[in-house]
Order: sequence, then C-alpha cells, then structure tokens
Amino acid sequence: MAKDFVKRSENYSEWYNELVTRADLAETSAVRGCMVIKPYGYAIWEKMHDALDKMFKDTGHVNAYFPLFIPKSFMCREAEHVEGFAKECAVVTHYRLKNDPDGNGVVVDPDARLEEELIVRPTSETIIWNTYRNWIKSYRDLPILCNQWANVVRWEMRTRMFLRTAEFLWQEGHTAHATKEEAVEEAKRMLEVYADFAENWMAMPVTKGVKSPNERFAGALDTYCIEAMMQDGKALQAGTSHFLGQNFAKAFDVKFLSNENQLEYVWATSWGVSTRLMGALIMTHSDDNGLVLPPKLAPTQVVIIPIYKTPDQLPTISEKALEIKRKLEAMGITVKYDDRDSFKPGWKFNEYEFKGVPVRIAIGPRDLEQGTAEVCRRDTLEKTSCSLDGIENRVKDLLDEIQKNLFQKAADYRAANTRKADTWEEFKEILDTKGGFILAHWDGTTETEERIKEETKATIRCIPFDAVEEEGKCIYSGKPSHRRVIFARAY
Amino acid sequence: MAKDFVKRSENYSEWYNELVTRADLAETSAVRGCMVIKPYGYAIWEKMHDALDKMFKDTGHVNAYFPLFIPKSFMCREAEHVEGFAKECAVVTHYRLKNDPDGNGVVVDPDARLEEELIVRPTSETIIWNTYRNWIKSYRDLPILCNQWANVVRWEMRTRMFLRTAEFLWQEGHTAHATKEEAVEEAKRMLEVYADFAENWMAMPVTKGVKSPNERFAGALDTYCIEAMMQDGKALQAGTSHFLGQNFAKAFDVKFLSNENQLEYVWATSWGVSTRLMGALIMTHSDDNGLVLPPKLAPTQVVIIPIYKTPDQLPTISEKALEIKRKLEAMGITVKYDDRDSFKPGWKFNEYEFKGVPVRIAIGPRDLEQGTAEVCRRDTLEKTSCSLDGIENRVKDLLDEIQKNLFQKAADYRAANTRKADTWEEFKEILDTKGGFILAHWDGTTETEERIKEETKATIRCIPFDAVEEEGKCIYSGKPSHRRVIFARAY
Repeated sequence: MAKDFVKRSENYSEWYNELVTRADLAETSAVRGCMVIKPYGYAIWEKMHDALDKMFKDTGHVNAYFPLFIPKSFMCREAEHVEGFAKECAVVTHYRLKNDPDGNGVVVDPDARLEEELIVRPTSETIIWNTYRNWIKSYRDLPILCNQWANVVRWEMRTRMFLRTAEFLWQEGHTAHATKEEAVEEAKRMLEVYADFAENWMAMPVTKGVKSPNERFAGALDTYCIEAMMQDGKALQAGTSHFLGQNFAKAFDVKFLSNENQLEYVWATSWGVSTRLMGALIMTHSDDNGLVLPPKLAPTQVVIIPIYKTPDQLPTISEKALEIKRKLEAMGITVKYDDRDSFKPGWKFNEYEFKGVPVRIAIGPRDLEQGTAEVCRRDTLEKTSCSLDGIENRVKDLLDEIQKNLFQKAADYRAANTRKADTWEEFKEILDTKGGFILAHWDGTTETEERIKEETKATIRCIPFDAVEEEGKCIYSGKPSHRRVIFARAY
Repeated sequence: MAKDFVKRSENYSEWYNELVTRADLAETSAVRGCMVIKPYGYAIWEKMHDALDKMFKDTGHVNAYFPLFIPKSFMCREAEHVEGFAKECAVVTHYRLKNDPDGNGVVVDPDARLEEELIVRPTSETIIWNTYRNWIKSYRDLPILCNQWANVVRWEMRTRMFLRTAEFLWQEGHTAHATKEEAVEEAKRMLEVYADFAENWMAMPVTKGVKSPNERFAGALDTYCIEAMMQDGKALQAGTSHFLGQNFAKAFDVKFLSNENQLEYVWATSWGVSTRLMGALIMTHSDDNGLVLPPKLAPTQVVIIPIYKTPDQLPTISEKALEIKRKLEAMGITVKYDDRDSFKPGWKFNEYEFKGVPVRIAIGPRDLEQGTAEVCRRDTLEKTSCSLDGIENRVKDLLDEIQKNLFQKAADYRAANTRKADTWEEFKEILDTKGGFILAHWDGTTETEERIKEETKATIRCIPFDAVEEEGKCIYSGKPSHRRVIFARAY
C-alpha cells in the first residue's frame, strides 16, 4: 500500500492529481496550463498511438502533416467555428525579439509585427480545407482519408493534467467525400474504431451516441461520441467524430466535378482523440494503491523480482528469471527483470504496484526448491503460487484474464451507476446522492437542456445509438419525448 | 521519362522544387515558410521515424514530451543560446481574440496580453533543463536519456521545402550525466547512430567530424556532425550532436549530489535530426526521371502492374500477381498491386517511376505463357525478364542490391568530388568550377574562417574525425596547420 496516498473515497480529484505525479506520468510545467509528459506516461501514449494508428491505416487512412499556424482570417470563414475556437487561443503577433535597449535580456521587436496574426491551431479544419481546395478537382480525387498526429493549443482557464491542458497531443482525421451518405458512413465508422479501441485496448466500456445540437463541435452538422463513466460516477467524453456536411467546403470553396459532370461542394468529416484518453484510462481502472493498467497498454506487462538474502543466492534465481523472461518475450510480452541490489524487494513491490504493472513474479530460493514462483496480479492484488513448469503460459492467460476483468469491472460499475429518472425530483436526487448516468426523457430543445445544466450542472452526454423508442415526458418541461437520453455531470 | 520535368543539369534548384511537388512529397502552405507534408512524403518520414526511434531505444533512450511554448525569460538564461535562437522566432503575445467592434471578423483582444511573452520552441534545451532541475537530486538519478519527437519553429527568411522551413518536424535528444566523459561519450555515440542511419537506411555516405567554433550550436562546447554531399556538389549537414558541458545546468541551476557527497553541476548533451533529412534523401539519389528511394525507406517497395488488352485476360494475371504479392509480403516486403483499369500501364509506369518505387514487376499474358515477368529496377532503370518460379527471392535480392548500389553510387560521387587544395587560387578555382568537398589546411582561427566565407561562400563543414595529422599551411593566411578540414558551399 502506497504511503500517504490519498484514497479515492476521500478526495477523488486530489487522488487523481497525486496519482498522475507519483506514478511518473506527467507533471505541470513552467508554462501555464501546459504539462510535461514524463517517459512513463509517454510510453503509454505511444502504445495508444501505435494501436490507433494501425486501426486508422487498416481502415484506409494515411497520415500527413499540416502547419501549426493558422492565419487569423481562416478562422473566421466558418461562422460557428470561429465562435467555438477562435476566442481562447494562442496568438502569434511577432516574429522577432531584440536585445532590450535597457540591457535586460530580450524584448519583442515592435518592427517585427506580423501583417496578419497567426493562431496556434486549436484544431485544423480551416488550414486543411484551404489545402484540400488544391487537391480536389474531380470525383476521382475523392475520397481523401487523411489523419494527422499533432499538438494543439486551446487556452483553457482551468486546466488538469491530461484531462484539460492548454497544449495537448492528439490525432485529427479529416476526410473529404463525394456524397453525404459516404461522409456520414465515414464519421460513424471512425466512431466504431474509437469504441473498439476504448473497449478492447483501454478496457473501458463506452456508450456510443450522438450529441445534442448544443454539444456539437463548432461547425458540425452532427457530432457522434463515445462516453465513458469514471469511478466517481462522472462522465468523460473519450472521442468524437463529426459529420461536417458541406460547411468547410463552402467556407473554403472546395468543389469537385461529379461523375455527372456537375460542380458540387465536397462533404466532410473530422474525428479526434487526444491525450485526454490518458486521464480516462487512469480514472477508469486505478485504485488506492496506485495506477492499474490494462495489459494491452502497459509499457511493462510483467516484472520479475528476485528475493534473496545473500548475494550467492542470486545467480540461480537470475538464471531461472531470465529463462522465464525469454519465454515470455518470445510470446510478445514485455518483461522487466529488476535485479537491482540498491532496492529491497518490498520497495520494488510497492513501486511496480503503484505504476500499475499488470503481473509481478517473485522468485526466491525456497520457490526454486519447490519449483514454483509467486505470481501477483495487479487488478485484484491476488497472489498465487505457480509451478515454474509452463509458467509462461499461465502468465499469458493471466494477462488476458486481467484485460477482461478490468473491462468487466468497469462495465459492472457503469451498469450499477446507470439509473432511470422519471421526475425532476428523482433526477436531482440521483444526481446529488448517487451521480452516474441518468437515463431520462428530454423534450429535444436546447432551452431545456441549458436550464437543466444551469440548475444541476448535468449535461446531455449523448442520445445513445441503441436508445429504445419509448414514449415519455421530459423530466424538466413535461413535454412529450420519444426516447431517453443520457444525462451526467462530466469532465 | 516524366514530361516537362526539368533536368538536374539545367537547374538543380528548380529540379528539386518541382520534384518535391510532383512526387507528392510536400507543398507550400498558406502560412509563410510552413509546408504541408503530403501523405507520400509523410510515409517516408514515418519510416525514418520508426527506424531512428528503434535505434534510440536500443541505445537506452526513452521518449517524453515537453511544452511547445518557452517563457521568454528562459531563452535569456544562456547567453550564447539567446543570441543563436531568440532573435528569429514566433512570439505569442496574446491568448484571446474578440469580435471586431467594426464587425469585420475577429481581432486580437488587447485585454488578453500575456504577462510574459511565450516563444514557440526553436529547440527545447531551456524548458527541458528547467524541468530536469526537479528530476535530478543525486547521482542515482543520472543519467537521464530522454528524446522528444516534436515540431519546432525558426523564423527563417528564405525557406525551401524540407531543407529550411519555418516549422519543421524533428527529434531532439536531451541527456544529463554525472561526468564530462560520459556526456562526451553520449554525444559521440548518438553521432554514430545518425551516421549508421544515414548510411544504412538512407544509403547516404556521410563524413563524421566536429564543427569549428564558429559553426557550433549556440550554447555547446562542441558540436559533432555528419555531413553529406548532394548531387550538385554542395554539402548538407544531416545531423548534429552537441556536448553542452555544464552550460545549461548552470543556467538552470541543475546540481546533483555525487557519490562523493559533493554538489556538482550536471553535464549535458543534445542531438537532433529533422525533416531536413527528407531533402537530403531526395537530393542524394533522385534523377531526371523523378524520385529514387532506397528500398529500406520506400513506403511501397515493389509495384506489380498487369498488362492486358481485354478484361478477360485480367483474372489469370491477377491470380499470379496476388500470389507473388503474398509471397513478398510474407518476407516483410511492401507491395502494391495496381490493377486499376482507369489508368493505362504506360501511365502507371511513369507514375511509379516518378515516385521512386524501387522495383516494378509487369505481367502480361505472354509472360504467363512463358512463365516469366518483366522486372525493372528504379535505380538503373534496367529491365530483365525473370522466371516466375522463385521470383520473390530474386526481388528480395534485388532490393538489397539496389540499397547497396545507391550507397555505392553516392560514395563514388563523393569520392570523385572531394579534392585537395593547397593554395588559395587552387581553392577558389575548384570551388567555382567543380564544387564538391575541398580538403584544405586552415589556421584554426574564426577570423580566417569568416574571411573565407565572405569571399567564397564556402564554410568549414567539419574537421573530420579521421583527418590525418599532416603539416601544412593555411590556404588563406599561410599560417601553420596540422590537418586538413573540409570546406564546401552548403545548404
């Protein structure tokens, strides 16, 4: 058990912040709202990157890279987009510093003012659609299925590591299509990719659905999303995929000659997930003993620790440990053998437990005599004595088991914390005493949605794709509704 | 042969620009000096990234991520560093836009001026060493071996795609060590990694050496470099590795408790290569027919094109082509089968030739009858008829052959264009009539180096590690010199 580590039940927010720092995932930086992603945190992000990148390529996408800067005027071309993004952003106004005439370091050179200010990209629809104009002439040039891995900046006032930072890392897909149907299909396909990744890699169950108009991406006709439930019952939007209609094509005059020889505006989608997923991963599985990682995203999946009293006991243990390591590695499993003599086994146990290594194997002289090793799984902290003979297969199975168990545990938690509310009183009561997802009827108006948000801080997370048709009355206005939507307080 | 494509001998600079655009590698963007890296160009960069990243990890490095922005004051901490970098940079002065009171889009909100301006990183020594201060307490925390893949911005006045752009992609390694010896060793080790990558992946011979004081990185005690020769005889600095001494540790007060219990400043290195390598790759191998790629970095290594007159001939060809494709892929080779009927074989031949696909296989009905296929290698454009039986092994060997041949060709070119000059007249004569590398004696002073640069635009590329001790006289000043250095005009 980690010393002085705050419990989730005591202060969930502090627990999160401390976990991120103490598990060496990230730390705040000297630049307001920007974080440093430390090597251990970055190694997890790299695994996310690699898995997602492969999924994008398997669905026909290619990577490209577009400029970091966006001319200010570009942001204004799409009316809703500028409202949503141009307000809180980093603005480059000058391109030179000069020595301070007073001798105090350097100052901005007033002679080096840019004719047009540049915005550090908060998202790249505008610069990309300005580029696509030159790439698209005819239907033969379509579809364009590009993705970009990049950093973006949004000047957030209240930041939290991974969840909301001024600069973050993400991928943004930007596709161009000849028909509306194809674009909608693409936006939905990528939402499925995100859901697949969230559930099968992150072991995080998600609800797929569509956002209410109020929660749409600025410039989109429809925003699809995956919503997850954190361990404090709050919702977290884990990924979004937007059907942008012809909005950006019109804003940047991107037309194509159809196979009926007509000039038509191109249809668009965009979709993205970010280092915010790191926050979601942490808050879905971790516990009062530290980080818990699903095996598929753990930089180290298995750690082997030798237990010995005198140095002469080490060589035979090491021999066995390295044999197990080789066998596991041959199965594609990442293993660390920590035989450092500068740290005691107990310290190492705590360290790897706190860092969420899924499986720990401890081997001592008595184990060797008995032909066994102690195997401990991080998710349940359960220890078993395991025969050395075929231990690699047992560990491989155990990793699969942990991956499944983490998903199931999170799914059970979500199920236990998803409730129906049929009256306004019931709705508020659940929100304040239990939290979680609330399935309730809503009259479909932005006005009602905003009133509910003002009064309770709960928002409509999504209208689930699998919502059952059901006649009911809006919990707030009493007006008729045809299906329940998901309300929750959210990150 | 590509139509209307300018020859290298006619206009090398135009040939390069046109090649970059027409081979779909990159294009200029709406933002001055920033380029769009198109999918085909980015696919090559991804291969470079993956190979280098593995080499860094194999030598014990880990990746991390540090903020895009650097507080202005940080840049001033190291005196030479600020001279070298803070002058031409993108400066963020505001964090908000607002609606123009005149109704014309948005304007910078004067109320949202940052207290301290932020510089978009031109390189990250300052922000990283400010972070390392908190990571390093004792010798047990050392070494730190971090690398970062990132975008950086340097406000260059004259830009050229890949070679010199305002924004570019790169990796920057930043390491911290307990001793001077260890830091120097690290800086040299990483130069060897770069040389290995340049020669064995890019098929580009490089000269390893140390920069003269004048050409050192701003803030370094020594800059090691690899220098390559382009097909116009000009030099290109392909990678640098810096021994930074204790300069940044002193500037950011980074001390550690040694194992003798003394507080000491930490020793540093930094090293980087960038998308500039794309320019080097293009200019080393490509020809008047377009791009030439070394097989190890080609996104598509083999293209198979069916030749048929009537659609009924296609199925049997496709069957054989797909069988070859499967066999090659099983050997880890990337293959594209282009059976699109919207383009003729001749068009496809030109297209893949221009894009530098190393091997092309063409299969027609007559080939099938004879049990052969036509195999064409991009480097020499040589075509051979090859038995279908075992063709996959022949192609695999051919790819290795092409990789070696490209290196050898470039090495021969470099050898033929490296000359000794013993007098100032001879030096100028060679520079103006032949170009290439000139091995000449230099008196070791910055003054002489600068005079030579002013008069001839040639710079000292490096003092080669393998320079032979040899007594001579400086070509410019006539003062004594103990070894020859490499002079050249450079990109």
